[in-house]
Amino acid sequence: MKKMDLSGYELADLLLAALKSEISSHDVYARLAQKVQNAFLRERLNFLALEEDKHRQALEGIFRQRFPGREIVIPAQPVVPLPEILFRDEQVPLSAVFAQAMKAERAAHDFYLQLAERFGDDVEKKNLLIYFSMMEMGHYKLLDLEKSNLERLEEFGQEQELIHVGP
Amino acid sequence: MKKMDLSGYELADLLLAALKSEISSHDVYARLAQKVQNAFLRERLNFLALEEDKHRQALEGIFRQRFPGREIVIPAQPVVPLPEILFRDEQVPLSAVFAQAMKAERAAHDFYLQLAERFGDDVEKKNLLIYFSMMEMGHYKLLDLEKSNLERLEEFGQEQELIHVGP
Repeated sequence: MKKMDLSGYELADLLLAALKSEISSHDVYARLAQKVQNAFLRERLNFLALEEDKHRQALEGIFRQRFPGREIVIPAQPVVPLPEILFRDEQVPLSAVFAQAMKAERAAHDFYLQLAERFGDDVEKKNLLIYFSMMEMGHYKLLDLEKSNLERLEEFGQEQELIHVGP
Repeated sequence: MKKMDLSGYELADLLLAALKSEISSHDVYARLAQKVQNAFLRERLNFLALEEDKHRQALEGIFRQRFPGREIVIPAQPVVPLPEILFRDEQVPLSAVFAQAMKAERAAHDFYLQLAERFGDDVEKKNLLIYFSMMEMGHYKLLDLEKSNLERLEEFGQEQELIHVGP
Protein backbone atom coordinates (compact mmCIF):
# COMPACT_ATOMS: atom_id res chain seq x y z
CA MET A 1 0.00 0.00 0.00
CA LYS A 2 1.26 3.49 -0.81
CA LYS A 3 2.09 5.37 2.34
CA MET A 4 0.07 8.54 2.81
CA ASP A 5 2.41 11.56 2.63
CA LEU A 6 1.39 14.19 5.15
CA SER A 7 4.78 15.89 5.41
CA GLY A 8 3.68 19.07 3.62
CA TYR A 9 0.75 19.80 5.93
CA GLU A 10 0.54 21.79 9.12
CA LEU A 11 -0.50 19.96 12.25
CA ALA A 12 -3.56 22.18 12.75
CA ASP A 13 -4.80 21.36 9.24
CA LEU A 14 -4.25 17.66 9.78
CA LEU A 15 -6.26 17.72 13.00
CA LEU A 16 -9.05 19.68 11.31
CA ALA A 17 -9.08 17.22 8.42
CA ALA A 18 -9.34 14.35 10.89
CA LEU A 19 -12.22 16.13 12.64
CA LYS A 20 -14.00 16.69 9.32
CA SER A 21 -13.60 13.04 8.44
CA GLU A 22 -14.86 11.83 11.82
CA ILE A 23 -17.90 14.10 11.66
CA SER A 24 -18.69 12.93 8.14
CA SER A 25 -18.34 9.24 9.04
CA HIS A 26 -20.39 9.68 12.19
CA ASP A 27 -23.21 11.32 10.21
CA VAL A 28 -23.26 8.62 7.53
CA TYR A 29 -23.36 5.77 10.05
CA ALA A 30 -26.02 7.48 12.16
CA ARG A 31 -28.16 8.11 9.06
CA LEU A 32 -27.71 4.56 7.79
CA ALA A 33 -28.67 3.23 11.22
CA GLN A 34 -32.03 4.94 10.95
CA LYS A 35 -32.65 3.40 7.55
CA VAL A 36 -31.68 -0.26 7.75
CA GLN A 37 -34.24 -2.96 8.56
CA ASN A 38 -31.90 -5.37 10.34
CA ALA A 39 -31.94 -4.48 14.07
CA PHE A 40 -28.51 -6.06 14.72
CA LEU A 41 -26.98 -4.08 11.89
CA ARG A 42 -28.67 -0.92 13.17
CA GLU A 43 -26.96 -1.38 16.56
CA ARG A 44 -23.62 -1.94 14.85
CA LEU A 45 -23.97 1.22 12.78
CA ASN A 46 -24.92 3.18 15.90
CA PHE A 47 -21.84 1.74 17.58
CA LEU A 48 -19.61 2.83 14.68
CA ALA A 49 -21.21 6.29 14.85
CA LEU A 50 -20.53 6.40 18.59
CA GLU A 51 -16.86 5.50 18.14
CA GLU A 52 -16.38 8.17 15.47
CA ASP A 53 -17.97 10.69 17.79
CA LYS A 54 -15.59 9.73 20.61
CA HIS A 55 -12.68 10.18 18.19
CA ARG A 56 -13.99 13.65 17.32
CA GLN A 57 -14.14 14.59 21.00
CA ALA A 58 -10.62 13.33 21.63
CA LEU A 59 -9.27 15.15 18.55
CA GLU A 60 -10.90 18.39 19.71
CA GLY A 61 -9.12 17.91 23.02
CA ILE A 62 -5.78 17.47 21.26
CA PHE A 63 -6.41 20.53 19.08
CA ARG A 64 -7.24 22.72 22.09
CA GLN A 65 -4.15 21.54 23.93
CA ARG A 66 -1.83 22.18 21.00
CA PHE A 67 -3.48 25.40 19.80
CA PRO A 68 -4.93 27.04 22.89
CA GLY A 69 -7.35 29.86 22.16
CA ARG A 70 -7.61 28.98 18.48
CA GLU A 71 -11.13 28.39 17.23
CA ILE A 72 -11.93 25.01 15.72
CA VAL A 73 -13.24 25.73 12.23
CA ILE A 74 -13.94 22.65 10.14
CA PRO A 75 -12.93 23.45 6.54
CA ALA A 76 -15.79 23.24 4.02
CA GLN A 77 -13.38 21.93 1.40
CA PRO A 78 -10.92 19.27 2.49
CA VAL A 79 -7.39 20.63 2.89
CA VAL A 80 -5.93 17.15 3.20
CA PRO A 81 -7.13 14.62 0.61
CA LEU A 82 -8.96 12.09 2.78
CA PRO A 83 -11.70 9.97 1.18
CA GLU A 84 -15.16 10.60 2.52
CA ILE A 85 -18.31 8.54 2.28
CA LEU A 86 -20.19 10.51 -0.34
CA PHE A 87 -22.93 9.57 -2.75
CA ARG A 88 -24.37 11.56 -5.59
CA ASP A 89 -26.82 8.90 -6.69
CA GLU A 90 -30.21 8.97 -5.15
CA GLN A 91 -30.42 5.31 -4.27
CA VAL A 92 -27.60 2.79 -3.95
CA PRO A 93 -27.39 -0.76 -2.61
CA LEU A 94 -26.24 -0.86 0.99
CA SER A 95 -23.22 -2.98 0.01
CA ALA A 96 -22.02 -0.12 -2.24
CA VAL A 97 -22.27 2.30 0.67
CA PHE A 98 -20.25 -0.13 2.78
CA ALA A 99 -17.62 -0.49 0.05
CA GLN A 100 -17.13 3.28 0.04
CA ALA A 101 -17.13 3.43 3.85
CA MET A 102 -14.41 0.75 3.85
CA LYS A 103 -12.23 2.94 1.65
CA ALA A 104 -12.74 5.86 4.02
CA GLU A 105 -11.95 3.67 7.05
CA ARG A 106 -8.78 2.34 5.47
CA ALA A 107 -7.68 5.86 4.61
CA ALA A 108 -8.45 6.97 8.16
CA HIS A 109 -6.33 4.06 9.44
CA ASP A 110 -3.38 5.11 7.27
CA PHE A 111 -3.90 8.76 8.14
CA TYR A 112 -3.80 8.23 11.92
CA LEU A 113 -0.66 6.11 11.66
CA GLN A 114 1.04 8.99 9.87
CA LEU A 115 -0.45 11.60 12.18
CA ALA A 116 0.89 9.65 15.16
CA GLU A 117 4.42 10.27 13.87
CA ARG A 118 3.88 14.00 14.43
CA PHE A 119 3.56 13.26 18.14
CA GLY A 120 6.88 11.50 18.57
CA ASP A 121 7.63 13.65 21.62
CA ASP A 122 4.29 12.91 23.27
CA VAL A 123 4.00 9.16 23.83
CA GLU A 124 0.50 9.32 25.24
CA LYS A 125 -0.98 11.13 22.21
CA LYS A 126 1.08 9.07 19.81
CA ASN A 127 -0.29 5.86 21.30
CA LEU A 128 -3.82 7.25 21.26
CA LEU A 129 -3.57 8.01 17.54
CA ILE A 130 -2.11 4.59 16.80
CA TYR A 131 -5.01 3.16 18.78
CA PHE A 132 -7.44 5.20 16.67
CA SER A 133 -5.85 3.78 13.51
CA MET A 134 -6.46 0.28 14.90
CA MET A 135 -10.07 1.18 15.73
CA GLU A 136 -10.69 2.36 12.16
CA MET A 137 -9.25 -0.92 10.93
CA GLY A 138 -11.80 -2.64 13.17
CA HIS A 139 -14.55 -0.65 11.47
CA TYR A 140 -13.15 -1.70 8.11
CA LYS A 141 -13.31 -5.36 9.11
CA LEU A 142 -16.83 -5.13 10.51
CA LEU A 143 -18.03 -3.39 7.34
CA ASP A 144 -16.29 -6.01 5.23
CA LEU A 145 -18.19 -8.78 7.02
CA GLU A 146 -21.52 -6.94 6.75
CA LYS A 147 -20.90 -6.32 3.06
CA SER A 148 -20.16 -10.02 2.45
CA ASN A 149 -23.34 -10.92 4.30
CA LEU A 150 -25.44 -8.60 2.12
CA GLU A 151 -23.84 -10.01 -1.03
CA ARG A 152 -24.46 -13.56 0.18
CA LEU A 153 -28.13 -12.78 0.73
CA GLU A 154 -28.32 -11.27 -2.75
CA GLU A 155 -26.83 -14.45 -4.22
CA PHE A 156 -29.68 -16.31 -2.58
CA GLY A 157 -32.18 -14.07 -4.32
CA GLN A 158 -32.89 -11.61 -1.53
CA GLU A 159 -32.86 -8.06 -2.82
CA GLN A 160 -30.58 -5.69 -0.97
CA GLU A 161 -32.13 -2.62 0.53
CA LEU A 162 -31.57 0.47 -1.56
CA ILE A 163 -30.31 3.27 0.60
CA HIS A 164 -30.42 6.99 0.08
CA VAL A 165 -27.37 8.14 2.02
CA GLY A 166 -27.62 11.84 1.28
CA PRO A 167 -29.32 14.26 3.63
CA MET B 1 -10.35 -25.85 9.63
CA LYS B 2 -12.05 -28.99 10.95
CA LYS B 3 -15.79 -28.73 10.58
CA MET B 4 -17.67 -28.98 13.85
CA ASP B 5 -19.81 -32.14 13.86
CA LEU B 6 -23.16 -31.49 15.50
CA SER B 7 -25.05 -34.33 13.80
CA GLY B 8 -25.38 -36.43 16.96
CA TYR B 9 -27.04 -33.70 19.03
CA GLU B 10 -30.67 -32.80 19.52
CA LEU B 11 -31.77 -29.36 18.43
CA ALA B 12 -32.91 -28.42 21.94
CA ASP B 13 -29.47 -29.26 23.35
CA LEU B 14 -27.74 -27.27 20.62
CA LEU B 15 -29.86 -24.21 21.37
CA LEU B 16 -29.22 -24.58 25.11
CA ALA B 17 -25.48 -24.91 24.45
CA ALA B 18 -25.59 -21.74 22.36
CA LEU B 19 -27.47 -19.96 25.14
CA LYS B 20 -24.91 -21.11 27.70
CA SER B 21 -22.08 -19.88 25.52
CA GLU B 22 -23.72 -16.48 24.90
CA ILE B 23 -24.38 -15.97 28.61
CA SER B 24 -20.80 -16.92 29.45
CA SER B 25 -19.31 -14.60 26.82
CA HIS B 26 -21.61 -11.75 27.83
CA ASP B 27 -20.55 -12.08 31.46
CA VAL B 28 -16.84 -12.15 30.64
CA TYR B 29 -17.02 -9.06 28.40
CA ALA B 30 -19.17 -7.17 30.89
CA ARG B 31 -16.76 -8.00 33.73
CA LEU B 32 -13.70 -7.08 31.65
CA ALA B 33 -15.34 -3.78 30.71
CA GLN B 34 -15.53 -2.84 34.38
CA LYS B 35 -11.85 -3.60 34.86
CA VAL B 36 -9.97 -2.08 31.93
CA GLN B 37 -8.46 1.41 32.11
CA ASN B 38 -8.84 2.35 28.43
CA ALA B 39 -12.24 4.04 28.00
CA PHE B 40 -12.45 3.19 24.27
CA LEU B 41 -11.76 -0.46 24.98
CA ARG B 42 -14.33 -0.40 27.78
CA GLU B 43 -17.00 0.79 25.31
CA ARG B 44 -15.99 -1.93 22.86
CA LEU B 45 -16.24 -4.63 25.51
CA ASN B 46 -19.64 -3.32 26.55
CA PHE B 47 -20.68 -3.43 22.91
CA LEU B 48 -19.52 -7.06 22.59
CA ALA B 49 -21.45 -7.87 25.77
CA LEU B 50 -24.53 -6.18 24.34
CA GLU B 51 -24.36 -8.17 21.11
CA GLU B 52 -24.01 -11.46 22.99
CA ASP B 53 -27.02 -10.53 25.06
CA LYS B 54 -29.07 -9.82 21.93
CA HIS B 55 -28.04 -13.22 20.60
CA ARG B 56 -29.23 -14.81 23.83
CA GLN B 57 -32.60 -13.10 23.52
CA ALA B 58 -33.02 -14.19 19.91
CA LEU B 59 -32.00 -17.78 20.74
CA GLU B 60 -34.54 -17.88 23.57
CA GLY B 61 -37.15 -16.80 21.05
CA ILE B 62 -36.18 -19.59 18.67
CA PHE B 63 -36.22 -22.14 21.52
CA ARG B 64 -39.71 -21.08 22.64
CA GLN B 65 -41.01 -21.23 19.09
CA ARG B 66 -39.59 -24.68 18.44
CA PHE B 67 -40.30 -26.13 21.89
CA PRO B 68 -43.38 -24.35 23.16
CA GLY B 69 -44.08 -24.84 26.85
CA ARG B 70 -40.65 -26.34 27.49
CA GLU B 71 -38.65 -24.62 30.21
CA ILE B 72 -35.29 -23.17 29.26
CA VAL B 73 -32.77 -24.78 31.61
CA ILE B 74 -29.17 -23.90 30.92
CA PRO B 75 -27.08 -27.03 31.54
CA ALA B 76 -24.46 -26.66 34.29
CA GLN B 77 -22.13 -28.94 32.37
CA PRO B 78 -21.79 -28.34 28.63
CA VAL B 79 -23.63 -30.99 26.58
CA VAL B 80 -22.04 -29.79 23.36
CA PRO B 81 -18.28 -29.21 23.50
CA LEU B 82 -18.06 -25.46 22.87
CA PRO B 83 -15.00 -23.59 24.18
CA GLU B 84 -15.74 -21.04 26.85
CA ILE B 85 -13.70 -18.16 28.14
CA LEU B 86 -12.52 -19.60 31.44
CA PHE B 87 -9.58 -18.84 33.64
CA ARG B 88 -8.31 -20.70 36.65
CA ASP B 89 -5.37 -18.41 37.28
CA GLU B 90 -5.93 -15.48 39.53
CA GLN B 91 -4.34 -12.86 37.32
CA VAL B 92 -3.59 -13.00 33.62
CA PRO B 93 -2.51 -10.43 31.05
CA LEU B 94 -5.47 -8.99 29.17
CA SER B 95 -4.02 -10.24 25.87
CA ALA B 96 -4.22 -13.81 27.20
CA VAL B 97 -7.90 -13.30 28.02
CA PHE B 98 -8.44 -11.98 24.49
CA ALA B 99 -6.62 -14.98 23.00
CA GLN B 100 -9.00 -17.32 24.79
CA ALA B 101 -12.02 -15.20 23.88
CA MET B 102 -10.94 -15.39 20.23
CA LYS B 103 -10.99 -19.18 20.41
CA ALA B 104 -14.48 -19.08 21.86
CA GLU B 105 -15.65 -16.62 19.18
CA ARG B 106 -14.24 -18.72 16.38
CA ALA B 107 -15.92 -21.81 17.81
CA ALA B 108 -19.19 -19.88 18.10
CA HIS B 109 -18.82 -18.84 14.45
CA ASP B 110 -18.36 -22.46 13.34
CA PHE B 111 -21.14 -23.61 15.64
CA TYR B 112 -23.75 -21.18 14.26
CA LEU B 113 -22.87 -22.09 10.68
CA GLN B 114 -23.58 -25.75 11.50
CA LEU B 115 -26.65 -24.93 13.55
CA ALA B 116 -28.03 -22.93 10.60
CA GLU B 117 -28.09 -26.16 8.59
CA ARG B 118 -30.67 -27.54 11.02
CA PHE B 119 -33.03 -24.78 9.86
CA GLY B 120 -32.92 -25.59 6.16
CA ASP B 121 -36.73 -25.44 6.02
CA ASP B 122 -36.90 -22.06 7.73
CA VAL B 123 -34.99 -19.54 5.64
CA GLU B 124 -35.49 -16.66 8.06
CA LYS B 125 -33.99 -18.49 11.05
CA LYS B 126 -31.29 -20.03 8.90
CA ASN B 127 -30.20 -16.59 7.71
CA LEU B 128 -30.35 -15.22 11.23
CA LEU B 129 -28.00 -17.95 12.47
CA ILE B 130 -25.63 -17.41 9.55
CA TYR B 131 -25.72 -13.73 10.43
CA PHE B 132 -24.87 -14.58 14.05
CA SER B 133 -21.87 -16.61 12.84
CA MET B 134 -20.71 -13.54 10.91
CA MET B 135 -21.19 -11.35 14.00
CA GLU B 136 -19.04 -13.69 16.09
CA MET B 137 -16.36 -13.51 13.42
CA GLY B 138 -16.57 -9.73 13.79
CA HIS B 139 -15.91 -10.12 17.52
CA TYR B 140 -12.95 -12.36 16.69
CA LYS B 141 -11.47 -9.68 14.44
CA LEU B 142 -12.02 -6.86 16.92
CA LEU B 143 -10.40 -8.92 19.69
CA ASP B 144 -7.51 -9.77 17.39
CA LEU B 145 -6.84 -6.08 16.77
CA GLU B 146 -7.12 -5.22 20.47
CA LYS B 147 -4.76 -8.07 21.33
CA SER B 148 -2.19 -6.87 18.78
CA ASN B 149 -2.45 -3.39 20.21
CA LEU B 150 -1.78 -4.62 23.75
CA GLU B 151 1.19 -6.64 22.54
CA ARG B 152 2.55 -3.65 20.63
CA LEU B 153 2.34 -1.52 23.77
CA GLU B 154 4.14 -4.22 25.72
CA GLU B 155 6.94 -4.25 23.14
CA PHE B 156 7.34 -0.55 23.80
CA GLY B 157 7.81 -1.27 27.48
CA GLN B 158 4.30 -0.56 28.72
CA GLU B 159 3.13 -3.25 31.10
CA GLN B 160 -0.17 -4.85 30.23
CA GLU B 161 -2.89 -4.71 32.81
CA LEU B 162 -3.25 -7.94 34.74
CA ILE B 163 -6.87 -8.97 34.80
CA HIS B 164 -8.70 -11.21 37.21
CA VAL B 165 -11.49 -12.55 35.04
CA GLY B 166 -13.11 -14.82 37.58
CA PRO B 167 -16.09 -13.73 39.65
